[in-house]
Amino acid sequence: MSETWFTEHHAPSGSSIGFRLRAKLHEETTPYQTIAIYDSTDWGKLMVIDGCMMVTTRDNFLYHEMIVHPALYTHAAPKRVVIIGGGDCGTLREVLRHAEVEHAVQVEIDERVTRLAEQHFPELCEANGDPRAELRFADGIQYMAECAPGSVDVVIVDSTDPVGPAEGLFNAAFYRSCQRALGEGGVLVQQSESPLAHLALIQSMRAAMRQAGFGAMATLPFPQPCYPTGWWSCTLARKGAAAIGAFREADAEARPFATRYYNAGVHRAALSAPEFLRAALRDG
Amino acid sequence: MSETWFTEHHAPSGSSIGFRLRAKLHEETTPYQTIAIYDSTDWGKLMVIDGCMMVTTRDNFLYHEMIVHPALYTHAAPKRVVIIGGGDCGTLREVLRHAEVEHAVQVEIDERVTRLAEQHFPELCEANGDPRAELRFADGIQYMAECAPGSVDVVIVDSTDPVGPAEGLFNAAFYRSCQRALGEGGVLVQQSESPLAHLALIQSMRAAMRQAGFGAMATLPFPQPCYPTGWWSCTLARKGAAAIGAFREADAEARPFATRYYNAGVHRAALSAPEFLRAALRDG
Repeated sequence: MSETWFTEHHAPSGSSIGFRLRAKLHEETTPYQTIAIYDSTDWGKLMVIDGCMMVTTRDNFLYHEMIVHPALYTHAAPKRVVIIGGGDCGTLREVLRHAEVEHAVQVEIDERVTRLAEQHFPELCEANGDPRAELRFADGIQYMAECAPGSVDVVIVDSTDPVGPAEGLFNAAFYRSCQRALGEGGVLVQQSESPLAHLALIQSMRAAMRQAGFGAMATLPFPQPCYPTGWWSCTLARKGAAAIGAFREADAEARPFATRYYNAGVHRAALSAPEFLRAALRDG
Repeated sequence: MSETWFTEHHAPSGSSIGFRLRAKLHEETTPYQTIAIYDSTDWGKLMVIDGCMMVTTRDNFLYHEMIVHPALYTHAAPKRVVIIGGGDCGTLREVLRHAEVEHAVQVEIDERVTRLAEQHFPELCEANGDPRAELRFADGIQYMAECAPGSVDVVIVDSTDPVGPAEGLFNAAFYRSCQRALGEGGVLVQQSESPLAHLALIQSMRAAMRQAGFGAMATLPFPQPCYPTGWWSCTLARKGAAAIGAFREADAEARPFATRYYNAGVHRAALSAPEFLRAALRDG
């Protein structure tokens, strides 16, 4: 066919996902990775890092709402939030919708991701000027290791896949830093790949979180057309004894900002694991 | 790359989904459509009709469980079930897991779909010999039009997309036949495409169901990697005044057969519509 498509062939799952293109807008290689920006016919702009689809204009709301709102409504009073990665700033924008948040720092290793997001995904960056927002371009592993104990309410790990720069974000050493930095009842949430293609990864993440001292964990699935299998997840862990499934339901129902996917019912629903996931995660 | 992939380019949504192949096993053109069978590296066998992915060995459990179990647990006592389409027999197999079912007829227009399923997806056909099962190869529209009034408890429309042979299964005339054939409290369920790509179709289906006399409706989303956007849905409608969200929860919890996706929590979860879907379906 004469049309041009961007197609990501995901070798481990033998499946691919693609989008019909209008044009390639940009490509550059940074010290960390290669970033490409495309314009598509139906999904708005695409950001692709090292050949992997990161964000589309049309469907990023699913991921950004689900990596933020369940975690923030699980914490009793989220005032101090750290985002590791998240360079497109969509996570930061959702965090700052919560009026309780006093300070949110985004620690992205590659400044070029944010600069390109400002240019091509300005709607995701619209909260960057919020006085509560701080943008740092630094190594998230080191940042978490140096955080003062008990100084953080919610850590959001919004990273690329566990290869390349993000590899060190999926192990017990990193989770121990998070555990130390979090206050009592603090919440860690991390993107945890596809329950349909990466079950072993989810299991090893949860084992490492447990090893680092986290007790309760929950893996919440959600649709995400631009990622392999079209179904993705985030995994929440909580410091202390509180149940991970308990959240501020009344606040979530009465939230004073608009969402497109998240609501209190969706949050409860995401906590109801399908049979195969329940069986796979029974022991951790 | 030297690998071979089957890729379905879904023009209306400008997105594609593909699977890495081992081999093409079969292709034939029947009076109704062209059917191809492939062997894939990671998803088992694939059945493709007119270029559209229908079934893979690995992920069909999602669709088959979700088009069957919510509907059957919504009906108070499902004894008589009609399946329109469903030629791969996976829906029939799930229906017959319910001990209450006394008779299930599958009305598939193209016998070759079933014959190829028997050969390439034998696990989906393992209930075909059940004495409660009846396989008919006939036009589903005509079958429903000729059903005795009140003679059916559940109608399951497990069809291809609303183009080609399945086009007549998505309008008020067909739904009126279903409404007449159903007894009081009878349930109609139909595959209703992707909530992320086919909202207008879902809205028009629901409007046509309402026009045909159905009161309550619910659209239940579920993941389905082999269909466009990776997220799919079925829409349930009920004859009479009972709420569509009420189902036999205790029976679903205590179901005496294994599932891989469905459980009572997943059923409740699927009834919790995301914000954008709730807004789009508010009036019908």
